[in-house]
Amino acid sequence: MISEKMKVLVEGSSAIRAMFEEGKRLAKIHGEENVFDFSLGNPNVDPPDRIKASIFEILNSEHPNFIHGYMNNSGYEDVRTKIANHLNQKHNLNLSFNSIVMTCGAAGGLNIILKTLLNPGDEVIVFAPFFGEYRNYVSNYDGKLVVVDPDIETFEPNIEALKEKITSKTKVVIINSPNNPTGVVYSERAIKELTKTLSDKEKELGISIYLVSDEPYREIVYDGVEVPYVLKYYKNTFIGYSYSKSLSLPGERIGYIVANPEMDDFENIMSGLNVANRILGFVNAPSLFQRVIADCLDTEVDVNIYKRNRDLLYNHLVELGFTCVKPEGAFYLFPRTPIEDDVAFCQEAKKFNLLLVPGSSFGCPGHIRLAYCISYEKIRNSLPAFEKLAKATIIK
Amino acid sequence: MISEKMKVLVEGSSAIRAMFEEGKRLAKIHGEENVFDFSLGNPNVDPPDRIKASIFEILNSEHPNFIHGYMNNSGYEDVRTKIANHLNQKHNLNLSFNSIVMTCGAAGGLNIILKTLLNPGDEVIVFAPFFGEYRNYVSNYDGKLVVVDPDIETFEPNIEALKEKITSKTKVVIINSPNNPTGVVYSERAIKELTKTLSDKEKELGISIYLVSDEPYREIVYDGVEVPYVLKYYKNTFIGYSYSKSLSLPGERIGYIVANPEMDDFENIMSGLNVANRILGFVNAPSLFQRVIADCLDTEVDVNIYKRNRDLLYNHLVELGFTCVKPEGAFYLFPRTPIEDDVAFCQEAKKFNLLLVPGSSFGCPGHIRLAYCISYEKIRNSLPAFEKLAKATIIK
Repeated sequence: MISEKMKVLVEGSSAIRAMFEEGKRLAKIHGEENVFDFSLGNPNVDPPDRIKASIFEILNSEHPNFIHGYMNNSGYEDVRTKIANHLNQKHNLNLSFNSIVMTCGAAGGLNIILKTLLNPGDEVIVFAPFFGEYRNYVSNYDGKLVVVDPDIETFEPNIEALKEKITSKTKVVIINSPNNPTGVVYSERAIKELTKTLSDKEKELGISIYLVSDEPYREIVYDGVEVPYVLKYYKNTFIGYSYSKSLSLPGERIGYIVANPEMDDFENIMSGLNVANRILGFVNAPSLFQRVIADCLDTEVDVNIYKRNRDLLYNHLVELGFTCVKPEGAFYLFPRTPIEDDVAFCQEAKKFNLLLVPGSSFGCPGHIRLAYCISYEKIRNSLPAFEKLAKATIIK
Repeated sequence: MISEKMKVLVEGSSAIRAMFEEGKRLAKIHGEENVFDFSLGNPNVDPPDRIKASIFEILNSEHPNFIHGYMNNSGYEDVRTKIANHLNQKHNLNLSFNSIVMTCGAAGGLNIILKTLLNPGDEVIVFAPFFGEYRNYVSNYDGKLVVVDPDIETFEPNIEALKEKITSKTKVVIINSPNNPTGVVYSERAIKELTKTLSDKEKELGISIYLVSDEPYREIVYDGVEVPYVLKYYKNTFIGYSYSKSLSLPGERIGYIVANPEMDDFENIMSGLNVANRILGFVNAPSLFQRVIADCLDTEVDVNIYKRNRDLLYNHLVELGFTCVKPEGAFYLFPRTPIEDDVAFCQEAKKFNLLLVPGSSFGCPGHIRLAYCISYEKIRNSLPAFEKLAKATIIK
């Protein structure tokens, strides 16, 4: 009785559930401490103490009907103003609250952007490897997903391949940096090449191409790397932001969209985002947490915890002979699989109680994703299992 | 550059904004205390004190990564179990957590139900007058909205008219009781007639027709009236519930769906709701407030505040000669307009600083909606304005 589209999705989700159940089955046999689950991108670092203090302060100082009430579908104006000012200071911009829409995390943000922009059949370009949910978000609005082949040497966006994919039907390009699943931070050079290509193609084809930069991992970066603020490089840019990772609040569903006020059709687009937030059923981003994050704009989780994990796991894998681009952000490694078939490799890994996600799930076979947002101790304990896996699969 | 569908919606939302701006303009001229805004369904009664106490308790007793973290897309299992048990006790049912999906309010709930069920062109039946957003929710999934004409004597669902509207393409019927905009609570007799009609038509046409009961106003009832629990009358029933009104938490976006475990294709539907919650970008209902409401299941706002408002306004309007079905729930009155054109009547009302919503917005012209979720004092002060409006429009 479910819809035709949903039938396919439910079958797909059963596969993920099967993997999850397999993890539970292994834990039962071998003990939970001996199963090493690298499959979930669920932040394990504590939210900053400031979050709790901030909730208490807000509840003690403001009227409950204000804290928990309706506001404009785009969010509280004072919260949006604070975010605009924060971004202005950080990135030398000149935004007002009009450019900000509070959203149910970045996932909610991406959905309302696509709902606002896409006519059925419009093309949305993504760069492999890419977060698998983009496929569903685009399909929700009957868009057509167009995948650009990866540059597996660097995992920077493959600009030459992009040029071939842009057509008069191209409406949106999605990028994601720091990237899930590679952990790579796109360089300023890459962003410049990308945005120049888009501008050139806009002129050549007489169309507007909107760039959506999905940035839930913006604050999770290492080694002093800079994440270019894409809004400064290209007029038709949206930033999708989320506090799920920077403040470890994934369950609270709080984030925002920034739209470049110079973008084509800005007024209508902002009204569209407001309407889309309402009619998709979000109505507004959760109200208390809008006020909490406005109070915590200069707060972040302790990124060093993730960095220590990255260093331990990355160094060990490279020593074992794995080929892996060293990631400067997010909490993922995306090594090449020593055998071609990444799904078979994940099956092999399970024999050593290692739960990994095949790169095919991200449109990039021949690789695996390891989410290292788990305890340091767990990673250390998993190292012998990786050694066994390497011995079983790497042909020296 | 926005989509064709969104263009139409943005134009419509401009009309609503224009009305809102008009209210602000009137307040500037006449003073805010002299403008009587009955246009917004925004609860004005305080949330119970228990909400704040509960938030403090949860933050002080549970680990922050648990409180603010990801959980199953359908919600925390213990929260869903508590809700199931609460409903079992209250309505003599036998539900488990498997029947419950935590949602971003009732609006999020309705969207994920329709996303799960509708193929393009499937028909969704609503009873006029109806909450205008249903039109958008159905359109989101390319369903076709089919409107049943109202019974303006009682505002109970018009079952004879319904029979004419059911076809082999009917997939969903939405009801809303206590009703927005009429305030009417559907009687048990009406629910029995409705569900018998649906069962008969299912057999006759060899289809499944899902009944969605949208119940954000369930606890806002007066005079000891009973709201029948529709799940008990019909196998293929969903309840969409929200804490926006019962706990005055509309900004927090917290509610749930209950699905009758006996419904056709139950397993796939529950998987579908889980997937829809995820891919529409809700991911999950806000996590802290899932735990808060589980702690406040026996708590409600003070409904007497609304009742006092209803009595004052209803009695006054009837004395003035207005025809109005006496509502037993929600916080709306839906009187007939003395002149046929409800939009013109609302324009006339504005001359006396009264802001009302025309019935046409709810698919029922010749009426107006008054939201009395404002202060008692404000209503008392508005009474002379209604008197002038009556004199200007009621032909004795």
